[in-house]
Amino acid sequence: MTIRENKSPLALEKQAASDYPLHEIVGGRWSPRYFSSQPVPKEKIGAMLEAARWAASSRNQQPWRFIVVTADQPELHARFVGTLMEANQKWAQEAPLLILGIAKRNWDHNDQPNGYAWYDLGQAVSALALQGMAEGVYIHQMGGFSKDAARAAFAIPEAYEPVVAIAAGYPGVLDEAPDDIRQRELSPRSRKPLSELVYGGEWGAPWD
Amino acid sequence: MTIRENKSPLALEKQAASDYPLHEIVGGRWSPRYFSSQPVPKEKIGAMLEAARWAASSRNQQPWRFIVVTADQPELHARFVGTLMEANQKWAQEAPLLILGIAKRNWDHNDQPNGYAWYDLGQAVSALALQGMAEGVYIHQMGGFSKDAARAAFAIPEAYEPVVAIAAGYPGVLDEAPDDIRQRELSPRSRKPLSELVYGGEWGAPWD
Repeated sequence: MTIRENKSPLALEKQAASDYPLHEIVGGRWSPRYFSSQPVPKEKIGAMLEAARWAASSRNQQPWRFIVVTADQPELHARFVGTLMEANQKWAQEAPLLILGIAKRNWDHNDQPNGYAWYDLGQAVSALALQGMAEGVYIHQMGGFSKDAARAAFAIPEAYEPVVAIAAGYPGVLDEAPDDIRQRELSPRSRKPLSELVYGGEWGAPWD
Repeated sequence: MTIRENKSPLALEKQAASDYPLHEIVGGRWSPRYFSSQPVPKEKIGAMLEAARWAASSRNQQPWRFIVVTADQPELHARFVGTLMEANQKWAQEAPLLILGIAKRNWDHNDQPNGYAWYDLGQAVSALALQGMAEGVYIHQMGGFSKDAARAAFAIPEAYEPVVAIAAGYPGVLDEAPDDIRQRELSPRSRKPLSELVYGGEWGAPWD
């Protein structure tokens, strides 16, 4: 399996403008807001979830849980979309795959707060996103949703905390998109320069 | 560049026992405690840091900072090792590359607490780890270090929070390792079953 084989010929390339070359599933990742309605095959969803499952976590606690909903479950899909902020609903309702990322608040062994629960969930979702890239599937993460509504919609126990709503699927065909959406999708990715993020040996000292 | 070319022929293979096939840089990742002293070339360190830089983050805040130390900076390397818990010092002092992962506490735009700072740092370090896999470089993350000592050692301002200490390098040659270390390294990776981590549509409902 190569990435090329999995890639839609219509997928927009937004390779990171990196100073050092990146592996294609790392450098090619970006967060679309315009998805095709084409369903994501179960094997690909499974591989993305397995990538999350096998992520690293503090004390191997795996403090991540996921609720998965697809467009062929219209009632559940609409219920998920209803938990999103209105601005996100507009585009995310087109995504054929929605995933809620949830953190387990406390350590398994002593029921005390696990300070790394969110950090580790972040690691798991990052791995899910990169495995998605190997499958030709893109994700867009949202903090803009009602955690209370999500808890109610999916009967999430108090010991767990909804953290991130994820819209996923194949990128849509931009030629068919309204102008404003196309322009937003085509806007280049940007990051702070490496020199602002990475220090050599001491805070503020140049690394390279 | 293929992963095979970058892989040490001596690197231990600990492929995830995944129910769905994973991309090799995702499924092959694990966290060694036994590193070769072979230095990691600057280009590879740079690619790993770029992978972190281009990770997704809430409002594209990029709330991650990294302090990078290599074994050819013996004073800084020893200072970093000194911040680790004793059990981690033993093996991490052999790692030729040490990275401190730091979160920016507050949002740039309003200086209020950024609840996603740790989550996003986790995403960045996950991408760093997976780019490392493409370079043949493995990482081992530690929560077991003194955050106060790290802050003092590297003059980290109050607005930033040390979160994770990372030891990195090429895996060591296990045949040369003491028995206890070899056995620990050879122990299989384990995770909760997918059915405990992933639900279909509602909490506790089977996904597949």
